[in-house]
Amino acid sequence: MSVLRNDTLLRALRREPTPYTPIWLMRQAGRYLPEYNTTRSRAGSFMALATTPSLAAEVTLQPLARYPLDAAILFSDILTIPDAMGLGLSFAEGEGPRFARTTADETSIRALAVPDMAKLRYVFDAVIEIQRALAHAVPLIGFAGSPFTLACYMIEGGGSTDFATVRRMAYARPDLLQHIVDVNTEAVAAYLGEQITAGVDAVMIFDTWGGLLATDQWRRFSLAPMRSVLEQLSGATARARVPAIIFTKGGGAWLDDLAQSGADCVGVDWTVDIGAARHQIGGRVAVQGNLDPVALLTDPETIANAAHAIIRAAGSSPGHVFNLGHGIVPLTPPENVAALVGAVHGHSNALSRQTSGV
Amino acid sequence: MSVLRNDTLLRALRREPTPYTPIWLMRQAGRYLPEYNTTRSRAGSFMALATTPSLAAEVTLQPLARYPLDAAILFSDILTIPDAMGLGLSFAEGEGPRFARTTADETSIRALAVPDMAKLRYVFDAVIEIQRALAHAVPLIGFAGSPFTLACYMIEGGGSTDFATVRRMAYARPDLLQHIVDVNTEAVAAYLGEQITAGVDAVMIFDTWGGLLATDQWRRFSLAPMRSVLEQLSGATARARVPAIIFTKGGGAWLDDLAQSGADCVGVDWTVDIGAARHQIGGRVAVQGNLDPVALLTDPETIANAAHAIIRAAGSSPGHVFNLGHGIVPLTPPENVAALVGAVHGHSNALSRQTSGV
Repeated sequence: MSVLRNDTLLRALRREPTPYTPIWLMRQAGRYLPEYNTTRSRAGSFMALATTPSLAAEVTLQPLARYPLDAAILFSDILTIPDAMGLGLSFAEGEGPRFARTTADETSIRALAVPDMAKLRYVFDAVIEIQRALAHAVPLIGFAGSPFTLACYMIEGGGSTDFATVRRMAYARPDLLQHIVDVNTEAVAAYLGEQITAGVDAVMIFDTWGGLLATDQWRRFSLAPMRSVLEQLSGATARARVPAIIFTKGGGAWLDDLAQSGADCVGVDWTVDIGAARHQIGGRVAVQGNLDPVALLTDPETIANAAHAIIRAAGSSPGHVFNLGHGIVPLTPPENVAALVGAVHGHSNALSRQTSGV
Repeated sequence: MSVLRNDTLLRALRREPTPYTPIWLMRQAGRYLPEYNTTRSRAGSFMALATTPSLAAEVTLQPLARYPLDAAILFSDILTIPDAMGLGLSFAEGEGPRFARTTADETSIRALAVPDMAKLRYVFDAVIEIQRALAHAVPLIGFAGSPFTLACYMIEGGGSTDFATVRRMAYARPDLLQHIVDVNTEAVAAYLGEQITAGVDAVMIFDTWGGLLATDQWRRFSLAPMRSVLEQLSGATARARVPAIIFTKGGGAWLDDLAQSGADCVGVDWTVDIGAARHQIGGRVAVQGNLDPVALLTDPETIANAAHAIIRAAGSSPGHVFNLGHGIVPLTPPENVAALVGAVHGHSNALSRQTSGV
């Protein structure tokens, strides 16, 4: 039994009936919030913010203070793992992540090792601190990047529009790519296991770049490692099993694979027809998504209409978690997020009461 | 009856048996070829090259002189149409396209009109000149951008990684986006009609950015306009109907829609499982694709293995056109293209002879 005051998200992830569609938003703690920018300024840098548990807890809770969201998500970054491997992560102002050392040649790839989880203590401490502050109000979601997505950044040394070096390696040196991914798989499993031990109520794997691969390569270098992570988490040694969400951006053609990955819920990006996705896989797993984040750059009425359309398409059977199809963009007006949360709760609650005849 | 000496492509597009799998490559005339760079230097700029029929013909034929490709494709750019609308197209060295005027506000959008096709005379003259030089060796493919993809560049004023302004307009001002797309639809239909009149043997519509849209928006703003173009081309007034290829990058989840678009062939990007795609739609239309262009950055053996895998997956029934899943990248070594063409011809021919018991 859950001690949470609001366990709507967890019930939706288990495809149990809920009085309304739960909602949380990828990057809900982020630059669109003035209070986030204030805390980040105080921290001095993104990494200082992410590695200081009290500050990470503070920004994790900020969106919850503004909006009646149904979950908190740990404030962190997917690249904490390669940073703990010694690659030297930094974020230049207004730019993406950058590693001091890339991992593209055989020597550096063979030298990779699963980092000591003590180096990521700050993440697990943040989980403990957030849970103390949340006081069982809503579930806390932990997360990690997929083993392949981490490999993308490690090989390129940072972000890229097309990760051509990584895609080339999948053809030219599949053995090397496999090695990076194998090390990452063990690291991600250990990392999420520690997050669960520290107290997260659910986990999500972000396969942000898996969608760049050919189908057979994605199955080998991204899906199989994620399955392995999920399998390790479901082992008897872990804390009572927490639900897992899997999200491959651009993976709309691979929904059956994702539904059979061992995850409880498949996140879908905004290009996916969520009605068709629910029809295809909704009997097996929950589905999370999928408003285009740029819809939040419009106005409350447009946002409400777009949210209603997604709720209608997702249908009345249990197992839909509302979210964006990707992270909130920094230019989003905070009042538009309020409009979205209100529209999702209000509309799904009204539909639910119609359906149950109340 | 075709007067072509090699009509393998046209037969594959009609799903008729061919002795081997025909191959051509998106951007086969381009910067990876030293002779292309020489001609472009001589022209002075990309636009000078594209608007001078003799030079456009010269570069169109360059890859045919090197490789036994089964088709030529008109050397041009998808943005010739908005340029003819008066938007002022240019290409800065090493950068993407740029318009002098964007089309993002109501006034400029309402002022858009289908351009006089006389302004695009240079394209049709290039078609005539290329056909004269080709002398019926292989078919010549004409092309246009999809009405939506043209709108993307017109609204942003150039390229973008995510075309957020366009995606936002689809929510905030669908009426304006519809207007741009409607004008573009008439322009693309007229433009491809003139290319057919000038003598192209097949046409292709490049829906490069349709994959960024939510499914319902893609159906409205990209698929429906493409259907309208294809319908207009199949009208009785046109020259004997030529086959059409439709290609939505990132459209792997929409193959059924694309197969019912009125096109004879659906192009698929490299993320698509071509075996599954052929199974899903191959009984109705031909399928074109789909090697990841970065595979050409490896070595002949790796390339041959990757090509064989695609040919095997695509199966022995007629109607597969080999291509990349997107355009050739500039760093491609020309000898690797030779290896690919040889591998596709050799392997598919051997398979075909096995199948027919020869």
